[in-house]
Amino acid sequence: MATHSQSYALPSDLPLDSGQALSGVEIAYETYGELAADKSNAILICHALTGDQYVASTHPITGKPGWWERMVGPGLPIDTDRFHVICANVIGSCMGSTGPASDGPDGKPYGMRFPVITIRDMVRAAVALLDGLGIDRLHAVVGGSMGGMQALSLAANWPERAERVLAIATTARHSAQNIAFHEVGRQAIMADPNWQAGDYYAGGNSPDDGLAVARMAAHITYLSEEGLTEKFGRRLQDRDSKTFGFDADFQVESYLRYQGSGFTRRFDANSYLYITRAMDYFDIAEEHGGPGNGTLADAFAGTTARFCVVSFDSDWLYPTAESRHVVHALNAAGAPVSFVELSAPFGHDSFLLDVPALDRVVKGFLDG
Amino acid sequence: MATHSQSYALPSDLPLDSGQALSGVEIAYETYGELAADKSNAILICHALTGDQYVASTHPITGKPGWWERMVGPGLPIDTDRFHVICANVIGSCMGSTGPASDGPDGKPYGMRFPVITIRDMVRAAVALLDGLGIDRLHAVVGGSMGGMQALSLAANWPERAERVLAIATTARHSAQNIAFHEVGRQAIMADPNWQAGDYYAGGNSPDDGLAVARMAAHITYLSEEGLTEKFGRRLQDRDSKTFGFDADFQVESYLRYQGSGFTRRFDANSYLYITRAMDYFDIAEEHGGPGNGTLADAFAGTTARFCVVSFDSDWLYPTAESRHVVHALNAAGAPVSFVELSAPFGHDSFLLDVPALDRVVKGFLDG
Repeated sequence: MATHSQSYALPSDLPLDSGQALSGVEIAYETYGELAADKSNAILICHALTGDQYVASTHPITGKPGWWERMVGPGLPIDTDRFHVICANVIGSCMGSTGPASDGPDGKPYGMRFPVITIRDMVRAAVALLDGLGIDRLHAVVGGSMGGMQALSLAANWPERAERVLAIATTARHSAQNIAFHEVGRQAIMADPNWQAGDYYAGGNSPDDGLAVARMAAHITYLSEEGLTEKFGRRLQDRDSKTFGFDADFQVESYLRYQGSGFTRRFDANSYLYITRAMDYFDIAEEHGGPGNGTLADAFAGTTARFCVVSFDSDWLYPTAESRHVVHALNAAGAPVSFVELSAPFGHDSFLLDVPALDRVVKGFLDG
Repeated sequence: MATHSQSYALPSDLPLDSGQALSGVEIAYETYGELAADKSNAILICHALTGDQYVASTHPITGKPGWWERMVGPGLPIDTDRFHVICANVIGSCMGSTGPASDGPDGKPYGMRFPVITIRDMVRAAVALLDGLGIDRLHAVVGGSMGGMQALSLAANWPERAERVLAIATTARHSAQNIAFHEVGRQAIMADPNWQAGDYYAGGNSPDDGLAVARMAAHITYLSEEGLTEKFGRRLQDRDSKTFGFDADFQVESYLRYQGSGFTRRFDANSYLYITRAMDYFDIAEEHGGPGNGTLADAFAGTTARFCVVSFDSDWLYPTAESRHVVHALNAAGAPVSFVELSAPFGHDSFLLDVPALDRVVKGFLDG
């Protein structure tokens, strides 16, 4: 699909939840489809942890198709013949928006001098982009996984900015298990001597080994046990029998190693640290009432949007109970919400894969 | 409890499933309770991946109580007033039995020259120990997790050697997800520059960082999501608010880091590689019929034992379906088997923790 690579320089400093502010913020984004004259047909798609703005166009590093090409395009559920789709790289990431690999005010890469950001900070940057584009109210904000967190955060914190909120395979707070898996990944990166306390941009080596291990651990959580069994089982990789060694005898080992090494070519290790931290800090209820005090319904008290919440029965990263928790809060806040748990074998990654029922839900909600 | 640290030197080479043989094998073991004159009251307890022979006596490195002191002792479910309990360190491990840290025939540590072993090889070594002790038939073989794999392997491969087989929180084969988590751990160790292809014993540095990451990833799989939420939730560690940094803000992060670093003081990284490999290779059905051909019932065709299989409802590492698979095979083989799924909140680690229902099941089965 023809794409429109653009970048927006925020006209003023971006205030952050930490109390700091980020100056000189750039937001890299892609758009698809025409913006209507009255600017009423814009859909903001928010990407996941390791996603990017190339939602429906070729990734410039990997050359692979966009991550949601099955969903976004002419005549597709998010129909670019009707809607103007915007997808922006989150701050903290590494595909053009300001993040730890960007140069700080002193002209040197931030590294770990980059401030710790939150999901709300990411959304604050996206709202600033919408301000710049003159879009007061979105037709919808849409996202899966961390994208869904951003969609919920936008609804809670900028309640007038979206008519529809579509949150898929997500949660309103990171659980202890979610935090634990992320912490393993961070420790793997920080244990890599090439990490050098985050100050590795000038040298020739980046902490690829640690980042690959982090990706492998996370990747397991994106798939279901049944899905892994169906896809790989105990099948051997290009051999007739076990080698009694430490090569990738099993297909699942080979697959994971491939996932790990491929990831390091397109992602910055420090970005992985900052974005996982933002996700672990995420707790909408806590934001709206102080530590341990807020209720999720309070957070959504002012919303003017209609909501659609979708979970997958095989998703053990953000299981259906987390979606139900969001739905109950929206009910308590009096917001119109439809909720569906879809059956799909792929685990958390179902939102990215071939699940025709999801296509129908997305199209129905956006067209309605 | 008074313990009896002993070591047994195998009188001949130990043949291995790989086709190799291991010479000069030492088996370190502990015993508790008196062996009857007719040697009919012996119970072999098999330990888990990171366990050891100190089932009911103080660990010599950590100074902590034995790993199953709540289960093994005078008047306890595995009653050392009645039974002679034997617990041997598996080969490949690092607490006195021959493993990768032991000296090879050339007087230098094996490192990665140690042959890849299997669960059946571990049991073969344990059976050689029983031979040396003159114990023809065990009152019972008992184990949880990898210990349960050994118990099932003994029943399948040495069908006359045990009257009772008690297999807890275990499986007859490692699933794709099980293999995947182990592969992450191995990659974390091998990515540590101090690993040096396993040849780190002479130098001052061992791959502690990699081993700690491996332990952290594995540890998450030993606990249930509910258990983690109950134990830690999103509670902060010794602070009132988030630091907006990368310290262990959350209790679950602090706990995981502690688990990781504590583990490296008592465990050898190469042993972790070899034992996880043995577990990943484990598939009793495959052993008894060639790759993909065997059925688990065939494996148990010759057994003379009574079986008790126990699973926990919150164990997602070896879920109840895996135990049921074993039970169906035993039924098909005509073996007497009782099966119970216990309700406990602790996940896979339930077999080590305070689950009174387990105590009753263990006592009832061993006394019956």
